[in-house]
Amino acid sequence: MKVLENYKDGFKRFLEIQEEMKNIGDAQGVLYWDMVTIMPPKGVERRSDVIGYLSQLMYKLETGEEYNSLVYSLHEHFEEMNDKEKAMIKAAKKSLDFMKKIPEEEYLEYSKLVASGETYWAQAREKNDYESFKPILEKIVFFNKKIAGYMGYEETPYDALLDLYEPGATVKELDNVFSELREGLLKLLNKINASDVKIDSSILKGEYSNEAQKKYNTELAKRLGYDFERGAIAESAHPFSTNFGNKDVRITTAYSKEDPIIAMYSTIHETGHAIYEQNIPDDITKTNIGGGVSMGIHESQSRYYENILGRDEKFVEAEYPNMVEAFEGLKEFAPVDVFRAINKVEPSLIRIDADELTYSLHIIIRYELEKMMINGEVSFDELPELWANKYEEYLGVRPETFAAGVLQDVHWSGGMIGYFPSYALGNLYGAQMLYKGILRDLPDYYDLIKEGKISEITKWLAENVHSHGGTYEPKVLIEKITGEPLNAKYFLQYLNEKYSKIYNLK
Amino acid sequence: MKVLENYKDGFKRFLEIQEEMKNIGDAQGVLYWDMVTIMPPKGVERRSDVIGYLSQLMYKLETGEEYNSLVYSLHEHFEEMNDKEKAMIKAAKKSLDFMKKIPEEEYLEYSKLVASGETYWAQAREKNDYESFKPILEKIVFFNKKIAGYMGYEETPYDALLDLYEPGATVKELDNVFSELREGLLKLLNKINASDVKIDSSILKGEYSNEAQKKYNTELAKRLGYDFERGAIAESAHPFSTNFGNKDVRITTAYSKEDPIIAMYSTIHETGHAIYEQNIPDDITKTNIGGGVSMGIHESQSRYYENILGRDEKFVEAEYPNMVEAFEGLKEFAPVDVFRAINKVEPSLIRIDADELTYSLHIIIRYELEKMMINGEVSFDELPELWANKYEEYLGVRPETFAAGVLQDVHWSGGMIGYFPSYALGNLYGAQMLYKGILRDLPDYYDLIKEGKISEITKWLAENVHSHGGTYEPKVLIEKITGEPLNAKYFLQYLNEKYSKIYNLK
Repeated sequence: MKVLENYKDGFKRFLEIQEEMKNIGDAQGVLYWDMVTIMPPKGVERRSDVIGYLSQLMYKLETGEEYNSLVYSLHEHFEEMNDKEKAMIKAAKKSLDFMKKIPEEEYLEYSKLVASGETYWAQAREKNDYESFKPILEKIVFFNKKIAGYMGYEETPYDALLDLYEPGATVKELDNVFSELREGLLKLLNKINASDVKIDSSILKGEYSNEAQKKYNTELAKRLGYDFERGAIAESAHPFSTNFGNKDVRITTAYSKEDPIIAMYSTIHETGHAIYEQNIPDDITKTNIGGGVSMGIHESQSRYYENILGRDEKFVEAEYPNMVEAFEGLKEFAPVDVFRAINKVEPSLIRIDADELTYSLHIIIRYELEKMMINGEVSFDELPELWANKYEEYLGVRPETFAAGVLQDVHWSGGMIGYFPSYALGNLYGAQMLYKGILRDLPDYYDLIKEGKISEITKWLAENVHSHGGTYEPKVLIEKITGEPLNAKYFLQYLNEKYSKIYNLK
Repeated sequence: MKVLENYKDGFKRFLEIQEEMKNIGDAQGVLYWDMVTIMPPKGVERRSDVIGYLSQLMYKLETGEEYNSLVYSLHEHFEEMNDKEKAMIKAAKKSLDFMKKIPEEEYLEYSKLVASGETYWAQAREKNDYESFKPILEKIVFFNKKIAGYMGYEETPYDALLDLYEPGATVKELDNVFSELREGLLKLLNKINASDVKIDSSILKGEYSNEAQKKYNTELAKRLGYDFERGAIAESAHPFSTNFGNKDVRITTAYSKEDPIIAMYSTIHETGHAIYEQNIPDDITKTNIGGGVSMGIHESQSRYYENILGRDEKFVEAEYPNMVEAFEGLKEFAPVDVFRAINKVEPSLIRIDADELTYSLHIIIRYELEKMMINGEVSFDELPELWANKYEEYLGVRPETFAAGVLQDVHWSGGMIGYFPSYALGNLYGAQMLYKGILRDLPDYYDLIKEGKISEITKWLAENVHSHGGTYEPKVLIEKITGEPLNAKYFLQYLNEKYSKIYNLK
């Protein structure tokens, strides 16, 4: 280990290597984007070779003598650093600690596996063929167990995986928060099921071409503040957002010919992610803190735009004229009917089509199954059945195909185990920011929405959330913004207020 | 330099490093494809950094001790090798000889320049702003002069640049061939201008959506033998084809709302390139001979499909029902009228819209200007004027904007000086293959076209041209196929036969 007289010089070199890593990462990101948006099917093998090769270069760079020595030497100067520098060195050290534990061949094998996983998943889902995907899932879980072992954990291996997406989160904490959440959700759901109010969401259906939907969603994303000079929208099987620095931030959408509302809200969701990344400051965009701080905070932004803002009555009223222009079938119905239809609560099979209330139950099911897979408490043969049982238990519906059940999500195919909880955490963070931040600082919040001044709200989010990038860990950030730690009560309060009104509950 | 006991072991390692280079090259190719098909405008700076970084990695790999030593050691065993091995080692050595002469910083600076050049060119063309592009063009020419110097040449610097795209071609040879060609073309053009036959090509015009054109062109490419399991079509400002191995071979098209025929023939052209790359055998796809052998031979394929096949009377007759279905305005006209309209000879300003006959005159103009730029015989201030003068002299038309003149082509912006002659050479090679190969081996050639059995013709091209990849230099290949060296007379014979009939010439 080098001893640094003045850490500033070493830090400059550290930033240069960070930029090299960002270059490789961006190249990988573009190769992935291209793979799922346009690459022909037979290109998959070659593509996986190329992505795998870049992973190898990244591995060499990160575990190389120079970078290693720099990171550990710089860490000795931790206390002299400012918040951003601290966050960079902490993240770099954490990643290195882990990399040094995982053997190179394993790392490369896993990188190749997850690079091609999505293509196999998409084929399996299309053919409703769980058997063809099972061995891949098995391998991915196997590797994730190993990864958990390499990373280390205090109580249970799943903690280590959670930490990848939500630094600091633990099973112990999530079990608590999610049990309060599940209880609250089921209670509210029961009331809604017993309500006399019946909502007809079929008024939203209608056949609209991809072209018409694309045009509407592009304009909608602009209205939300998404900058197309630094953004683009494409199609893929599963919507996602990705970025290569803060000046090339993209989203994808999947269009349903029969229901334009699906793509509309998925676009709002991904736009929420994208606006976060577009608002990352230039001075950190090429570093390891140059992105959203965690998946949970990221989802708090996307789910805030999608639900708290996007499904708000005032928002739907303001958006109604644009919707009607694009989807003319809607003009037979009043804005309030559209608002109610968009907020209909109805337990269903597909997570991404779920309403705002039951959505978190889909997440809790995945959270429970992931823990079981990682703990070896369920066999891969039984997994689809167990999935179906849980849906029946919590939501009262049962999938009859793999495609509508265990094969519906892309995440596992890309190696993402421990990610799903982020969606539910996002709901909680978002509601907490609303009640303990936005409404406090923007007392005319509902007027802003009504008048279409979304940019004022986006500005608040940019200042309070986006501008920090990965400087503060989620726990620190949420306290900084709201003055208190994560709490399920605000989300439950938000849901109760909103749905009591819609469903006329006592 | 290592001494190899048995060159086979060293060759195995050579192939491994070739594959690494292919990995980096494919990543760069995807980054480029993405840049010109979907990347948002403000992403250009970051993208140029990433592509530049990969160029740096490529440079290090190629000029690294191990690969260097391998290539020169293997070259000692040249005589023991088979044709493919010889071609690989020869190309590797040629590239290395050059790389060792160009200083690393210059190479990297140039790579970055040409990676972003196209974006600046596209903006300049859109705004008809030559001044904004001039300094970039100046830099590119400056670098190309240096490159010529590093590569070395016997007679004139432009020879070195020609050799990049058409190994073995020289100014001396092209001056000869092109003067015969220009003379023959102007003679035929004069006859056509004096002919009483007047062709109305406006019958081809009509407003068709991008979607409708996309659909037609996709089906058309399939009919020509383009495999969409290994291919994809996107849009870009300037149509091109690119590939990442032989299983991911793509093309782009630019649609004109008023004229579906433009995209149709540009699609046929790019499909010709793509079929070449899809037919490269698996055993060489990851090597430096795993692609078309030269730009001239590549253009011989694309221009054969586009013109000799695609504008043939029998082809148009066979394609007519499909055209009419997609572009219904055409149904008022007989196939023969469509055929004649598609082959109307009319000197015009834009190369890519030019007819088959005057096209080569556009090329000859660029050839002459490129030689002058490289020899410093024209200033960049005067260039647009000189361009206009030459158009007036050869074609009788004069551009009134930069966009329709000197800014019309993408090539220079990407550093490609010495490329244009390939298009004209492609015409010559193609006609020579037709008369001295295809018609010899497929006596029922015109029946095959009439019956839509294009796959039989594609099979001939695959066997005789595509399957060799870069094994044989153009000079060797054309003799192998046709039994004689390159000759302008077949192309002139082809044009005279075809247009004498259309224009009723004596």
